[in-house]
Amino acid sequence: MDSQQIESTVIEMARKAREAARHLGTLSTSVKNRILLATADLLLAERDSLARENARDLAAGREKGLSPAMLDRLELSDKVIDSMVRGLREVAALPDPVGEISDMKRRPSGITVGRMRVPLGVVGMIYESRPNVTIDAAALCLKAGNGVLLRGGSEAIHSNLALAAILQKALGEGGIDAAAIQVIPMKDREAVSVMLAQEEYIDVIIPRGGEGLIRFVTETSRIPVLKHYKGVCHLYVDESADLDMGVRIAMNGKVQRPGVCNALEGMLVHAAVAGDFLPLAARELMAAGVELRGCERSCRIVPEMVPATDTDWGTEFLDLIMAVRVVDDMDEAMAYIRQYGSRHTEVIVTGSYERSQRFLREVDASAVMINASSRFNDGGEFGLGAEIGISTTKLHAYGPMGLEELTTRKFVVYGDGEVRG
Amino acid sequence: MDSQQIESTVIEMARKAREAARHLGTLSTSVKNRILLATADLLLAERDSLARENARDLAAGREKGLSPAMLDRLELSDKVIDSMVRGLREVAALPDPVGEISDMKRRPSGITVGRMRVPLGVVGMIYESRPNVTIDAAALCLKAGNGVLLRGGSEAIHSNLALAAILQKALGEGGIDAAAIQVIPMKDREAVSVMLAQEEYIDVIIPRGGEGLIRFVTETSRIPVLKHYKGVCHLYVDESADLDMGVRIAMNGKVQRPGVCNALEGMLVHAAVAGDFLPLAARELMAAGVELRGCERSCRIVPEMVPATDTDWGTEFLDLIMAVRVVDDMDEAMAYIRQYGSRHTEVIVTGSYERSQRFLREVDASAVMINASSRFNDGGEFGLGAEIGISTTKLHAYGPMGLEELTTRKFVVYGDGEVRG
Repeated sequence: MDSQQIESTVIEMARKAREAARHLGTLSTSVKNRILLATADLLLAERDSLARENARDLAAGREKGLSPAMLDRLELSDKVIDSMVRGLREVAALPDPVGEISDMKRRPSGITVGRMRVPLGVVGMIYESRPNVTIDAAALCLKAGNGVLLRGGSEAIHSNLALAAILQKALGEGGIDAAAIQVIPMKDREAVSVMLAQEEYIDVIIPRGGEGLIRFVTETSRIPVLKHYKGVCHLYVDESADLDMGVRIAMNGKVQRPGVCNALEGMLVHAAVAGDFLPLAARELMAAGVELRGCERSCRIVPEMVPATDTDWGTEFLDLIMAVRVVDDMDEAMAYIRQYGSRHTEVIVTGSYERSQRFLREVDASAVMINASSRFNDGGEFGLGAEIGISTTKLHAYGPMGLEELTTRKFVVYGDGEVRG
Repeated sequence: MDSQQIESTVIEMARKAREAARHLGTLSTSVKNRILLATADLLLAERDSLARENARDLAAGREKGLSPAMLDRLELSDKVIDSMVRGLREVAALPDPVGEISDMKRRPSGITVGRMRVPLGVVGMIYESRPNVTIDAAALCLKAGNGVLLRGGSEAIHSNLALAAILQKALGEGGIDAAAIQVIPMKDREAVSVMLAQEEYIDVIIPRGGEGLIRFVTETSRIPVLKHYKGVCHLYVDESADLDMGVRIAMNGKVQRPGVCNALEGMLVHAAVAGDFLPLAARELMAAGVELRGCERSCRIVPEMVPATDTDWGTEFLDLIMAVRVVDDMDEAMAYIRQYGSRHTEVIVTGSYERSQRFLREVDASAVMINASSRFNDGGEFGLGAEIGISTTKLHAYGPMGLEELTTRKFVVYGDGEVRG
């Protein structure tokens, strides 16, 4: 395809998605749920043909020299298919946010005003290798009444198209325009740029992937973007902390799944407890294979630490590495978080009521926690049901985004002939 | 000032606003209210010096050949000052949205999760001639805990700087960093472009003014923009409508204040009642000086109408002109609204329960109304207390934006040492 064909194809797909989305907003919950459950059944029934298409991507990936980790993420194993099926059934079971009317109030003029939850319209998803995002994102968008245009990684193209075919088959069986869910079939990056210019047809862009992808999307897009660049999360161990609790939360945040955005990347320890806490924490963390990169004071307490360099502060390691710094008080800890944090997740471990409340109020992050692991910053753990991403910008959504964040509220007015005086 | 000086000045102002805003989020309600009330008192006390600065703008405006309407909007008359004073006192009386925690829930993991309302950070306001926006916007931003960078029309520069001086004096008396509220002192349009590039320091841009300004801001900004381009609002008179009510709502929507965005620009009438309704409505509207531009069928019923041309459909007249069309049914009316509306305000007058509910659900606009005047789409009338603008895009806010829309919600977690399994 040449540039012009790519452009006209993507624009036409976006236009059709907008047209299809018009009807989605008024579908009954049971119709939407039927489509979600039918998709789950089709995934199970077409396991073999999915495996065939996925094998094409895997073979091409191997030829291209993708790392074992990337090939692993690309694979639609039975386990991954089962998790997509489970996800679809969970989304079907969630309450439907669309149509909910809240805050109904009678006004002095006589009119009654409320706010009705409605879909955003068309969502543009741009993501990297994992093909399961195709199903997970489509399910949430459909349940919230939105059309969705999906653009996965080029290395997963056959898998994504096979998944889209299943979704569209389920839509068709439900009597719904298949254009409601579409996967962009071109591998060219140009297709993404064209997509990001369709502000007439697409209401919001949600990118998921590495920082490079997200920066590209943010700088290119003329459509609002809901995103987070990275997760540089910190644990602050206060002077009044329960030290065993501090160790437990440090371990869980760093070791349980170091490659995710809500893992801990840095630890700040009040000087008054550093002498007691750091040896305890270091022993456990190091036994679990964590490399600790400490400030001067930390290294004096635990000489086994690696001296930190300037680039360690604020780095998203996504690995068994952690930056450690001793601070004189909570103000210094909060100043550090302001400078090096990414507004994702920040945790205090403290026994002080006053400092717990100050930390909660004053720290600016999508989730601020007292005495709990940063790993809880997740749509499922927070009770949103499922998440389509995490936002660290403040407009529209801040934190994990679930069904509600895929909707907006319009004002509705019930009158009896009132006019304005 | 040369380009480089403009750039460095605006960047430095934005940086200082961000720094000042950090503290605003944690101010107590009473401190913020004290500043608002002190500003009101200062406005009254400094009426004369304000009038002097305003006279400089008026003289320059007359010299530049501004229209009487524009000079009128520029004037800080006693009436305008009184309304700013009233506005400040009203905002002081509104409940403080910041710090409210809602949706607190205990999760199966043991943690308790809720959402705390927090300021957005720094708001960038870009507006045209009316200098009272300087006070109105600053008051709402301050109450919501935000810093604000204001850029008014160049013709109001002396008035705006005098108002800013009063605001900063009140901030200073309250012990607050005066950089929390700043007016950009340069007349150059370049200053706006620099402002729109400061995504590191400014969280949201709210433009208010003509469509040209808003398009410029939207296309230039790297910061999210909350905006509406225009208000092309319609009244649909259904076959089952109370015709007198239809006339009343048409008159109020078109005549009471034709130059505002929630005024009616078009009227759609069901064919079954057009023969009865249009003569009634036309008599009253024409008596009030309204020019009716009708479709062929409308003109056959009321020959005094001007035949509409294609450019009349969807035009924001902001004047005593109204486009009129006869439709065969509500579906045709809704299709017309989809094509020509601006997602601002849409009204149905009907006696049918079924159609009222369908219209409410299916019409996509920031406010959808049954049997009430479009003129009610307003923050004050809807009970938001005051409004900083109206959004017709769906991200973050849809409809009038009050204090709540100047905030966001972060997640807060209360734990007792919980970790993720």
